[in-house]
Amino acid sequence: MRIANLAGRAVLLTGDGAVDIHKASGGALSSDPQALFEGWQDAWPVLAALTGEASAYEDSDLRAPVPRPGQIFAIGVNYRDHAQESGIDIASLTFPMTFTKFASCLTGPFATVTLPEGWVDWEVELVVVIGKGGHHVAARDAWEHVAGYTIGQDLSERLGQWSGPAPQQFSLGKSHPGFGPTGPAVVTLDELPDPADLAIGCAVGSETMQDGRTGGMIFDVPELIAHLSSVAVLQPGDLIFTGTPAGIGATRSPSRFLADGDELVSTIEGLGTQRVTFRTA
Amino acid sequence: MRIANLAGRAVLLTGDGAVDIHKASGGALSSDPQALFEGWQDAWPVLAALTGEASAYEDSDLRAPVPRPGQIFAIGVNYRDHAQESGIDIASLTFPMTFTKFASCLTGPFATVTLPEGWVDWEVELVVVIGKGGHHVAARDAWEHVAGYTIGQDLSERLGQWSGPAPQQFSLGKSHPGFGPTGPAVVTLDELPDPADLAIGCAVGSETMQDGRTGGMIFDVPELIAHLSSVAVLQPGDLIFTGTPAGIGATRSPSRFLADGDELVSTIEGLGTQRVTFRTA
Repeated sequence: MRIANLAGRAVLLTGDGAVDIHKASGGALSSDPQALFEGWQDAWPVLAALTGEASAYEDSDLRAPVPRPGQIFAIGVNYRDHAQESGIDIASLTFPMTFTKFASCLTGPFATVTLPEGWVDWEVELVVVIGKGGHHVAARDAWEHVAGYTIGQDLSERLGQWSGPAPQQFSLGKSHPGFGPTGPAVVTLDELPDPADLAIGCAVGSETMQDGRTGGMIFDVPELIAHLSSVAVLQPGDLIFTGTPAGIGATRSPSRFLADGDELVSTIEGLGTQRVTFRTA
Repeated sequence: MRIANLAGRAVLLTGDGAVDIHKASGGALSSDPQALFEGWQDAWPVLAALTGEASAYEDSDLRAPVPRPGQIFAIGVNYRDHAQESGIDIASLTFPMTFTKFASCLTGPFATVTLPEGWVDWEVELVVVIGKGGHHVAARDAWEHVAGYTIGQDLSERLGQWSGPAPQQFSLGKSHPGFGPTGPAVVTLDELPDPADLAIGCAVGSETMQDGRTGGMIFDVPELIAHLSSVAVLQPGDLIFTGTPAGIGATRSPSRFLADGDELVSTIEGLGTQRVTFRTA
């Protein structure tokens, strides 16, 4: 099942088009995608049985599928090959490095993003959508807490991110408007039960930049859920950006950053494709 | 004007008690404190003229006055004396070090907080409540974007916070459940137009731990609003934790952390007093 945000309304995407979830459920389910995920435990049985007429839609009307998460957890250097290209000793990463992307940076999967000054880089990531809250969730129970997965771009302005003394500016440097494209849809567990080994990559135009597999994660999804929930209380409708594989622009030789007119195409096996366009102000 | 969250309902606190905002406004204003701040621009003229009958209330029924902020910005080492006690060169702090407290850590001003394992420390802070969103807000226009101020405790589990390589675990280590006591109330600008030089401090029981003035900030409130909004889009109902003065437990000799039965009393001039009690699990 693929749940998207079509111009602000929760829809199912089928091979035939978009089914309005509020209408198809006879008003039982919210039209607001955020409310749908916040009430996931009650919504899921209704959703799983939902049928309705599909209508044609435009990709450009898709918005962030989880538009106002209460918490956005983001994990730094969580792929072995990205740790290597970043010059970070994997043995030092004894637990997931955690920051946030401030929620105002979220945007849709086919957005046009205005480039701020600086060095804007890509980081394609598997994003976990939480469907059931919890504290001290065991890794073996993690799947019970997941509503589904989507693609995220953890866009990062490197000059800002790396400024100043530790702990630097990870959270702020990754939170310019439009720096969190997500979607096109949240793919639920019936369709994708385990994201442990999916192809994940991105290209600028036709040039491949990242080409990895989620199996390259240092901490896999159950371990991330266990770690984060060992401290914070997870809530339905939260997002976890799980880190990016090798191939960022900053560590290429020469380095390469996003420029006016670039199209960033991000794909994860089973989750679809995003196409984000960049413009200078 | 003092706006509080009394058992989930927005109230005005007066000398006589609590006035229910929804009832006193004839239903014009939301009973939900979060919705009230998210609609601040429209709510303020109605609030400013509000009168109603005050009822007695118990402090223990006060909750976080802004319970579900869309974004929580938090600033590290933003007081000169705290930078000194932390061994950080003030000249290196050329802009505000920014992290988050994940929103599930928020709690009320008279809460009982369960101590996790580790070293739990206090950090009394002036908290700014955003009333009007904005991007690229100039420092001279910052006041237009503020709904008011409250007291926050940026409770911090130091072992977790300082673990691992830079950028460490600031956001997660400060986000255990209950690690964000806020309140008792949001004090609006009519009552406190400028927080530039307020007494700010906290005590464990009767022993004073922090005793500073907001004038000790490296970046003052208008500068913080200008800096944060130069990257992220501020939204009404957001919070900014503005940093803490000297006197944390970790840099005392010997170091001192919160223990079972401790009461942490936090006060900011004009904003009132919080009393938070700690228990082991």
